Amino acid sequence: MLKEVMDELSPMVEEALRNFLRKEGEEAEKLSSFQREYYGNLEEFLLRGGKRLRPIALIMAYEGVGGQDVEAAVEASICVELLHNSSLVHDDIIDRDELRRGGPTMHVKYRDWLRRLRGERDAEHFGLSMGILAGDSLFNLGFKSLAEARFKEEVKLKALRLYVEAYEQLIDGVLMDTYLPLMLEVDEGDYLTMVDLKTGSLFEKSLTIGSTLAEAKPLQLRALSRYGILAAKGFQIQDDIIGLFGREEEVGKPVGSDVREGKMTLLMVKALQLASLSDRERLRSLLGKRDLTAGELAEVRRIVEGSGALEHAKNLAASFIKEAKQQLRLADPPLTSKALSFFEELADFFIQRSF
Amino acid sequence: MLKEVMDELSPMVEEALRNFLRKEGEEAEKLSSFQREYYGNLEEFLLRGGKRLRPIALIMAYEGVGGQDVEAAVEASICVELLHNSSLVHDDIIDRDELRRGGPTMHVKYRDWLRRLRGERDAEHFGLSMGILAGDSLFNLGFKSLAEARFKEEVKLKALRLYVEAYEQLIDGVLMDTYLPLMLEVDEGDYLTMVDLKTGSLFEKSLTIGSTLAEAKPLQLRALSRYGILAAKGFQIQDDIIGLFGREEEVGKPVGSDVREGKMTLLMVKALQLASLSDRERLRSLLGKRDLTAGELAEVRRIVEGSGALEHAKNLAASFIKEAKQQLRLADPPLTSKALSFFEELADFFIQRSF
Repeated sequence: MLKEVMDELSPMVEEALRNFLRKEGEEAEKLSSFQREYYGNLEEFLLRGGKRLRPIALIMAYEGVGGQDVEAAVEASICVELLHNSSLVHDDIIDRDELRRGGPTMHVKYRDWLRRLRGERDAEHFGLSMGILAGDSLFNLGFKSLAEARFKEEVKLKALRLYVEAYEQLIDGVLMDTYLPLMLEVDEGDYLTMVDLKTGSLFEKSLTIGSTLAEAKPLQLRALSRYGILAAKGFQIQDDIIGLFGREEEVGKPVGSDVREGKMTLLMVKALQLASLSDRERLRSLLGKRDLTAGELAEVRRIVEGSGALEHAKNLAASFIKEAKQQLRLADPPLTSKALSFFEELADFFIQRSF
Repeated sequence: MLKEVMDELSPMVEEALRNFLRKEGEEAEKLSSFQREYYGNLEEFLLRGGKRLRPIALIMAYEGVGGQDVEAAVEASICVELLHNSSLVHDDIIDRDELRRGGPTMHVKYRDWLRRLRGERDAEHFGLSMGILAGDSLFNLGFKSLAEARFKEEVKLKALRLYVEAYEQLIDGVLMDTYLPLMLEVDEGDYLTMVDLKTGSLFEKSLTIGSTLAEAKPLQLRALSRYGILAAKGFQIQDDIIGLFGREEEVGKPVGSDVREGKMTLLMVKALQLASLSDRERLRSLLGKRDLTAGELAEVRRIVEGSGALEHAKNLAASFIKEAKQQLRLADPPLTSKALSFFEELADFFIQRSF
């Protein structure tokens, strides 16, 4: 079911995204060719790849609680993809990532553009400026796409509030992600709060926006909301694992960048608790080392695996996924059987994927 | 009237801002002391100074078209101050400004905080990251403050749309501001389009949000909207003049930074048209020079003044202000006499101020 739904909806979401951005680009053309090109760059960035998990989850939540106008739901669904990408563009600056989905991150795209145009002068800063603005735009475009969707005004206002709440929590999550490395000790609770905000919120909001647009009943909303928060924890832990143990060709971005940025992933939090004293010290000295070598990265992997942190993370992720699936059954009236299978398989996929 | 209204409303707006941010800070305290402190920093930044022009204009537009619940309008009015500051925080990164209202800009505040905490390591990048996030937060907080205001839902949805539109145009304006320096030739039309987006939009939206909340009639909305766009052009031209000819103690930020950033202010656009060939060449070579000396800045001033660009700018600003005031009289039903005098005097102030 998962693959069928993804294969069916993914091109529809991408079509809606493309149409929306082209329409915006045509508007912008009145201003200048630079602005036109800017929308072209947003389009390229967004359509370069990505699993469209959030919009597809939104649509399936809509369908799962009995929503009938799937076409309208597809148009609305791109809001969460735009918001997700808004946050990616700013995160890539914050995390100094140069590669995203096998292509340059937005700030790098513009840095290199100016570099080609007139050499090194100010290219770095220009890229940064454009990245900030592009992230700002994408949030705004997401809002606009939802505000324009074909649903009743009062239903839309509710959905827009969820959208803005998602953004607020996302920012709180990135803030936590930014300051946890500055703390002397981080425990699993801090980590999980950060994940709820940084990853959980937008996934959960995708589900609640979808079900709100379909005017779901409270126990449907609650089941999907809880599923979302739990499944996202599994998703993020798997992301942490892939970020350290994955293969760059599969992941589409540099492996080990969490370590270079000193990020407090679950693997680090646990290894810093479970490893031997000397390993812990070694790990601390490597965390945040910007010029980490391949050998040092292998050492980090060895410590994380040897300490039992990897196994712990895998078990924890699996238990969240199990609980998430149980929540789905509590929806009342029950979800459609198509949506139920989809969300169950999606949760399993979250911890089985290697990219 | 202007001074009385400002003196009356400014403390009310600041009180509303403080209450709102404190409430948010208390929420955030559940997450961590860092987050709590973060809201404290936003509060300090916002309450450090500022003329509160936009929220006061919002309230006066509300009153001017017959709105009765001024207290609710004050609470809603902070949305445009929050949005304005969101854009300032990101702009300060883009423009590399370190000083704002006599204190450090947001990214500098956090850079220096980390520097004190652990020396130079990553302080610059950390400040940048926090500045990006703070700008994101402030936009979101503005949305929230408007969404929570005590008005009918359908009226609020209209106002929220205007809010998001303002942000969209603002971003388009900053984009234009960023790429105009890359163009070989910029004419007055490009400049004025940029001003409409970057400065005009948020001022105009302050007026239309205020009058929308009061359920204004179409010809009231139109008069205030046109007034806003015209008056903002006068405002921005005066800002350009102050930015080059003002005194740093009065302005609260470095004079000449537009030149250092290579910004296409009206003064530059016109001087590059009107000055002698050799002066034009000299001007081009100084525009965007990041280590501009005081002597070179004086030279820029001399060229701008000698070419007639300064006089042209002053005349153009005055004619926009005159036209803006005429628009106010076209409101139907007419604006209250208090609002009319306020907006007339405000427009005059826009081009008479020296800070």
